Amino acid sequence: MYYPSSLVENAVNEISRLPGIGKKTALRLVLHLLREDKHISEDLAGSIIKLRNEIKYCEVCHIIADSTKCNCYHMNTDVSILCIVEDTPDVLAIKSTGQYNGMFHVLGGRISPINGIGPDELNIKSLIKRINNADGEIKEVILALSSTMEGDTTSFYLSKQLQGSKVMITSIARGIPIGGELEYADELTIGRSISSRTPFSSLS
Amino acid sequence: MYYPSSLVENAVNEISRLPGIGKKTALRLVLHLLREDKHISEDLAGSIIKLRNEIKYCEVCHIIADSTKCNCYHMNTDVSILCIVEDTPDVLAIKSTGQYNGMFHVLGGRISPINGIGPDELNIKSLIKRINNADGEIKEVILALSSTMEGDTTSFYLSKQLQGSKVMITSIARGIPIGGELEYADELTIGRSISSRTPFSSLS
Repeated sequence: MYYPSSLVENAVNEISRLPGIGKKTALRLVLHLLREDKHISEDLAGSIIKLRNEIKYCEVCHIIADSTKCNCYHMNTDVSILCIVEDTPDVLAIKSTGQYNGMFHVLGGRISPINGIGPDELNIKSLIKRINNADGEIKEVILALSSTMEGDTTSFYLSKQLQGSKVMITSIARGIPIGGELEYADELTIGRSISSRTPFSSLS
Repeated sequence: MYYPSSLVENAVNEISRLPGIGKKTALRLVLHLLREDKHISEDLAGSIIKLRNEIKYCEVCHIIADSTKCNCYHMNTDVSILCIVEDTPDVLAIKSTGQYNGMFHVLGGRISPINGIGPDELNIKSLIKRINNADGEIKEVILALSSTMEGDTTSFYLSKQLQGSKVMITSIARGIPIGGELEYADELTIGRSISSRTPFSSLS
């Protein structure tokens, strides 16, 4: 692609490193920034720098937060349930359903020997400690990990680690997505939806 | 949408001001930046600031450039043709066709009374001066403006302004796009493609 200026080229290269943004989109964004007021670019760049420099992770639940203490123990939280997820976006996704008001614990990934990520690279030790320190206040742990080989491995590892404690371990339901047609679902999913069938009255 | 941190919320708001990027995409980009190395964010923000602060416009052709003199008069340029476009992206689009090696002149928009843009807000005076100063070296001026009411108004205004000079004024061809089917083209376009028909041998 031909660029009229090395400054434009440099900005396009940096912006197109973002996921889902190609060179053409990046160029469109650059030309947009050049048309807009200077402070738009300054605010954008400033917010990115500030984000990256000042972001903290809550030392209890490891979620992205403004300080090392997020409000994971706020008033309305049900402290008897703990939902284990891979990353912060999963927390946002579950919160936005409005179906869950318990606590969260962010692992920071999943066990993946191929990428050199073992249990020690994840926030598993702090999870065990957190459950033990709760003195039986945590009654249930929900494993809400991806339904992939690595996610299942991590779930299995966690269930083994938690066997000693008296918490009930549950996993989020696998089955046909809402709005999904049987015809287009894969066999594994259909099989799981049959074997994990629920009483009809429990449907909301 | 629920944000785990005000830093995240701020960055999402700034990023989602860009065209074509909504809050969900912005959040995905923010979480990506947080996962990546710090220098990725710094380079991104730095390139945006540098772009906005140091960009210049060529004082001859008004294209975006690193300095106030772009290489609009480089060795291989055909200085007898001048293509008039609305904005820098149009220059890039025409250059990338490989069909044109003449000079460019960026107007910086089109005449649009509704948006308060008259001839004086555009680089028209410098265009007239450029053509007059060329001492007859510029033989042809190509009007390559949008085929909209405002584009046509601007083309008409320019053709009136250039009537005194001896340059030939041409306009880019309007017609059925390459690969386009007649069935799906609008009547105005088909009509124009008939009235502006070209000898068959001239097709490349």
